[in-house]
Amino acid sequence: MKIMTLSAFIKEKAAVMKKNDDRKLDDDVLNIIQTVRREGDRALLNYTRQFDRVDLQTFTVTEEEMALAKQEITSEFLEALNGAKQQIIHFHKNQLEKSWFIEGEDGTLLGQKVTPLESAGVYIPGGKAAYPSTVLMNVLPAKIAGVKQIIMVTPPDEDGRIRSEVLVAAHIAGVDQIYKVGGAQAIAALAYGTETIQKVNKIVGPGNRYVARAKKWVYGDVAIDMIAGPSEVVIVADDTAPPHYVAADLLAQAEHDEDATAILITYSKKIALTVQKEVEKQLQLLERKAMINESLEKNGRIIVVDSLKEALQLVNKIAPEHLQLMIENPMEKLPLVKHAGAIFLGNDSPEALGDYYAGPNHTLPTSGTAVFSSPLGVYDFLKKSSVIYYSEAALNKSIDSIVTLAKAEGLTAHAKSIQVRRKENGKKK
Amino acid sequence: MKIMTLSAFIKEKAAVMKKNDDRKLDDDVLNIIQTVRREGDRALLNYTRQFDRVDLQTFTVTEEEMALAKQEITSEFLEALNGAKQQIIHFHKNQLEKSWFIEGEDGTLLGQKVTPLESAGVYIPGGKAAYPSTVLMNVLPAKIAGVKQIIMVTPPDEDGRIRSEVLVAAHIAGVDQIYKVGGAQAIAALAYGTETIQKVNKIVGPGNRYVARAKKWVYGDVAIDMIAGPSEVVIVADDTAPPHYVAADLLAQAEHDEDATAILITYSKKIALTVQKEVEKQLQLLERKAMINESLEKNGRIIVVDSLKEALQLVNKIAPEHLQLMIENPMEKLPLVKHAGAIFLGNDSPEALGDYYAGPNHTLPTSGTAVFSSPLGVYDFLKKSSVIYYSEAALNKSIDSIVTLAKAEGLTAHAKSIQVRRKENGKKK
Repeated sequence: MKIMTLSAFIKEKAAVMKKNDDRKLDDDVLNIIQTVRREGDRALLNYTRQFDRVDLQTFTVTEEEMALAKQEITSEFLEALNGAKQQIIHFHKNQLEKSWFIEGEDGTLLGQKVTPLESAGVYIPGGKAAYPSTVLMNVLPAKIAGVKQIIMVTPPDEDGRIRSEVLVAAHIAGVDQIYKVGGAQAIAALAYGTETIQKVNKIVGPGNRYVARAKKWVYGDVAIDMIAGPSEVVIVADDTAPPHYVAADLLAQAEHDEDATAILITYSKKIALTVQKEVEKQLQLLERKAMINESLEKNGRIIVVDSLKEALQLVNKIAPEHLQLMIENPMEKLPLVKHAGAIFLGNDSPEALGDYYAGPNHTLPTSGTAVFSSPLGVYDFLKKSSVIYYSEAALNKSIDSIVTLAKAEGLTAHAKSIQVRRKENGKKK
Repeated sequence: MKIMTLSAFIKEKAAVMKKNDDRKLDDDVLNIIQTVRREGDRALLNYTRQFDRVDLQTFTVTEEEMALAKQEITSEFLEALNGAKQQIIHFHKNQLEKSWFIEGEDGTLLGQKVTPLESAGVYIPGGKAAYPSTVLMNVLPAKIAGVKQIIMVTPPDEDGRIRSEVLVAAHIAGVDQIYKVGGAQAIAALAYGTETIQKVNKIVGPGNRYVARAKKWVYGDVAIDMIAGPSEVVIVADDTAPPHYVAADLLAQAEHDEDATAILITYSKKIALTVQKEVEKQLQLLERKAMINESLEKNGRIIVVDSLKEALQLVNKIAPEHLQLMIENPMEKLPLVKHAGAIFLGNDSPEALGDYYAGPNHTLPTSGTAVFSSPLGVYDFLKKSSVIYYSEAALNKSIDSIVTLAKAEGLTAHAKSIQVRRKENGKKK
């Protein structure tokens, strides 16, 4: 891993600022979406043949497939999965929101009514790996919110199968229906519906750039969680951090894919050097060594700054998906962190703990979007309606102000709809 | 207004289901966005010359312009505006969210930290009318959330001016900077920044179809509130509703623009007929008669259903922006309403009361998006970070489960980042 100064890092970042103007990708994605809207299931089967190289007759996962999956997994895995489920529920149930009312003078009542979405679609990536943890992290918040219909889509392998771990995770999370379909075509199906797949209210879950772009396109016709980019960790460490822990956490992050980002920020030159050595050492022992090496070359950096203050300023500028504070008294520095998806405090709270088990969601804002967005949560599956009740007496007091404002906007029929109610004041209705 | 049955209404709706695939509009909007990203201020001035027909030297509103605006407005207007401001704050402050923590066994601490966005951009439409109420409704929730930098953009008239009412509303709401720029170019400036205009974290506020489409395009690089369509009201009325109130409220809604939708649903044929007559009668007395008539022809409908139950089922299907329940004991029917942006209860709670004065936000989900989205609120300007702290003992208990899950996903470096921490158990550090 390259060690560099803050100013060198800022210069490097500025040089690679990417532009998101891939017109070719958009054309491809829009064509897929339009074809699915026009041809429904048939388009899904065709695209599955083309992209996933399997000729399915139907893409509904059957009870037999689920039964087989349950036999195939180990009891150890099932126990771990159930443990994670309990932790996720334990944390997320605190995100439930209540309807509320405030009462005013003259019998007014103003409120906010909270209602769960009726349906949600969860996209789970396929390809190289299986992600049962992602199933739990995306489905359970919807369940807690009270969403009645949860549909999962995920691309099949070349044998037309879904990994058993993923199927079982869907089962224990409480998914209502699973379909073997992936890519932009799956997003289109969830957004607009086909003969088989029901249109949903919101689409959540990570995916490749086709999936991400399709979500951007259907946004507005359907709600989406966020547009996810490659995963990132920033670790801030001082001399109290065990270098082999820091190195292991950077390597774990680099393992996600070639575009993953692992950054160490420190004001200790000693830590910078020992972590650099530890990374080299531990790297040799890892299974996915080549890929991790590529990722570290590209985006792995050790940045030496002058002080903790400077380190946290840089953190807020990067707004990382994951932040680990491996420093003395990390809790006391929490108020200085403004922008990060998830904040891990101390030496025994590595990112992998949060990825799998601690309870908070692992679907987090990436690419600096933590400046304006939040982890996936129960609140993603709830929505609000305002409630307004005014009595005749209460309205009467406000009539002049409302009429003045409506007229200032040239909306005279609005003014009249208020004035018509003045006539009856004083009279018994 | 046409009176029709439920089945006729459903048939009519199905026939006009619109497709949102305007490639020409997208090309225009994308070109504008790219030009603004490339040329900055110069592009903004060029587009303002082209679209707003005014040759500005600078688009920053000066202190002199603000001082003049304050002189131009009436004290009556200022008082009404301040009254509305107080009501909006009174309601919205209840939407503030608190950070929270839960403590677990072995000294774990899990939490959710709430932080305001740093900056927000508010788009205020110009053109035919001035919308000071929209300024308050969009800016005040950001202020309450604690957003430090609030930028307002709005297109100038052909004299290069902004309406005094809008400027004063921006002042009393606490806007930090006002720029005379509108359309897709204003959205691009807020999303990516120019020499003069600072890039913001989130863009809110209504606009024409260029603005709406530009918001869809920049979404992801910046947060947006929602993509707003034409305004709608659904009124459910029974025999207890005064027909002249109902008619006045339908006419007020139709006044917004030619695409506005005003629908009455009733199970009383008597009300259907008397409201129809009242609408005709009141229409003759209105200033914007021709436009209102066009709007009612196009989208104004009186739908006669069999029962209150059927009426509310249709409401949930339409998921209207505004819903007025002008029925007996409306409060008791609230649990049956699942989807509506704002719900107005009783005969003295017309939509115009909510548009201007009651306090809840008037920026509401349109076009059926109330099935998945909420009114604009303080929560739109807050975001969350997860917080995870585990002690050595707590992590130790979870190690086996985390390692099992990480290995099931093929992420062995994740597993190692957990296992490396096992070594020191039992030892004193």
